[in-house]
Amino acid sequence: MTAARYAVAAIGNAIVDIIGRCDEDFLARHGAAKGSMRLVDAETVQKLYSEMGPAIEISGGSAANTMVGLASFGGKAAFIGKVAGDEFGRIFRHDIGAAGVAFETAAVNGKAPTSRSLILVTPDGERTMNTFLGISTDLDHGEVDADTVAGAQIVYLEGYLFDQPQAKSAFRQAVTIAGKAGRTVALTLSDGFCVERHRDEFLDLIRGGVGILFANESEITSLYQTPHFDEAARRAAKDTRLAVLTRSAKGSIIIAEGATHEIPVDPVEKVIDTTGAGDLYAAGFLFGLTSGYDLETAGRLGSLAAAEIISHVGARPQTNLAELARSRAIIR
Amino acid sequence: MTAARYAVAAIGNAIVDIIGRCDEDFLARHGAAKGSMRLVDAETVQKLYSEMGPAIEISGGSAANTMVGLASFGGKAAFIGKVAGDEFGRIFRHDIGAAGVAFETAAVNGKAPTSRSLILVTPDGERTMNTFLGISTDLDHGEVDADTVAGAQIVYLEGYLFDQPQAKSAFRQAVTIAGKAGRTVALTLSDGFCVERHRDEFLDLIRGGVGILFANESEITSLYQTPHFDEAARRAAKDTRLAVLTRSAKGSIIIAEGATHEIPVDPVEKVIDTTGAGDLYAAGFLFGLTSGYDLETAGRLGSLAAAEIISHVGARPQTNLAELARSRAIIR
Repeated sequence: MTAARYAVAAIGNAIVDIIGRCDEDFLARHGAAKGSMRLVDAETVQKLYSEMGPAIEISGGSAANTMVGLASFGGKAAFIGKVAGDEFGRIFRHDIGAAGVAFETAAVNGKAPTSRSLILVTPDGERTMNTFLGISTDLDHGEVDADTVAGAQIVYLEGYLFDQPQAKSAFRQAVTIAGKAGRTVALTLSDGFCVERHRDEFLDLIRGGVGILFANESEITSLYQTPHFDEAARRAAKDTRLAVLTRSAKGSIIIAEGATHEIPVDPVEKVIDTTGAGDLYAAGFLFGLTSGYDLETAGRLGSLAAAEIISHVGARPQTNLAELARSRAIIR
Repeated sequence: MTAARYAVAAIGNAIVDIIGRCDEDFLARHGAAKGSMRLVDAETVQKLYSEMGPAIEISGGSAANTMVGLASFGGKAAFIGKVAGDEFGRIFRHDIGAAGVAFETAAVNGKAPTSRSLILVTPDGERTMNTFLGISTDLDHGEVDADTVAGAQIVYLEGYLFDQPQAKSAFRQAVTIAGKAGRTVALTLSDGFCVERHRDEFLDLIRGGVGILFANESEITSLYQTPHFDEAARRAAKDTRLAVLTRSAKGSIIIAEGATHEIPVDPVEKVIDTTGAGDLYAAGFLFGLTSGYDLETAGRLGSLAAAEIISHVGARPQTNLAELARSRAIIR
């Protein structure tokens, strides 16, 4: 096994977030389940956009956010995902590159626009996402650069991609390449409804080679079809080497080699927008793990990054996370 | 004189802001004078964008921000400005409409892209703007809807438009229409360098029919070519009926009918981004004035709106300004 060029290479949807505020009634009127991600078609995204309030545009995408967070901690990150050659594609490419993440996937012209997610933030700070996948559905195994995947300590897969049939073959190829190169595969389940839609395939993938599983409470209980978090956690610990389970305000637990580590949240004064909380937790955790810190420290870095991201609008950090972690004496 | 449909109709550049952070060195390296607005061509905007850090996109434009602020206070606002039929044009139109501002100017396809301003925010919160005017330069008197202008208590003109020869004819037409309809013309000087470039024409316009002049310290001293603010203020009071002069942290003064009103700033915990401070001061002031409040109250509403806008990234309010003003007991 050769030395890794990247700490983590991620495969995910390349998305620009369009974030605005709304009240609970607006979600109900538009049939959106609060806190979830749903896929919408071009017509629905247009209708919803025309009815929602003023918004701001910020690069997003779950795994892309995680890679930007990792880079902000000082970790070497790469991202694989598909954009179109349009304005949103240029914005996405600029922002991820300017954040220091390697992003080489070529843009595709004339097929579909760059993916966008209309994110509605309710007064409690909770985000509800309405995603139009656009060109992201075009991601297939042809986009998975073998050198990038084999050149990373960890390849990180975004569960949302399971909603795209072609992307599954990209996943499987990445797992094969990572396996041959002796690398670790990490998977994030992304969303409870997404797990509902693809439960068996997720379980096959997890049991077939996922070394690190990221999930929140609704995702892991959905995966194992149990209302009991503890039971779901036990089963996850059997299916994967390292289970990293986040529980919003209740903190997170990390289960590895039979030991369970409980990590508290990092308190925030006011939750402004929860978009990216899980993504940034993963960023901190992955930075800690690939930098040789112990699991508790990795978890604390996750909590720290999640706290930073929910204290402002958008899922990209507004603070240098390495400096923040040093100022808090979590790392030196 | 018939009853007005709008409190204020504004004419200005329709711009999407691309806001990122940078250090002082970055400004120096790129020859940008801190705190100013400079016009850049397509090539420069491209180069600057490729070198600047991650950014977020938010609708902007000085007079457009003012109209959105006015609407947030509950005032009836209209905006005239030019966008292209591209992604940024759609963003601009969505955001201003969703904020409750009437915006009827048709988009123009295939000539030039929608205007954008690369706004670099230094650690002290000061913003430096690099604006690519794009389709905004195409605004001419054909775009000035006579019904809109004649149907507003005040027509508000953005000084930045003086950088565009065609737009001057739009200004003059608006002044003529407003004069015939017995309406008030307000002008904001926009930028000290902009005043340098067009001093004589600004003075002609002010003396020839501007009833309300908005300016900050650098703009008004540039206009009257004096280093002394007090002298500039005295001269402004002679040239116009109502002079509204903002002085950043020193507050603002309002001069009308020989009387000078000093308005304190509304304190903020931390200045995050000064983009839009003057625009939102004008919004509060114009709301107060057109709603029948006294000048001091109008000034306090200006200070309140400016404080809200500098406490977050971007020049569009994130809070309902009417509710904010009521919660502070400035209005009922």
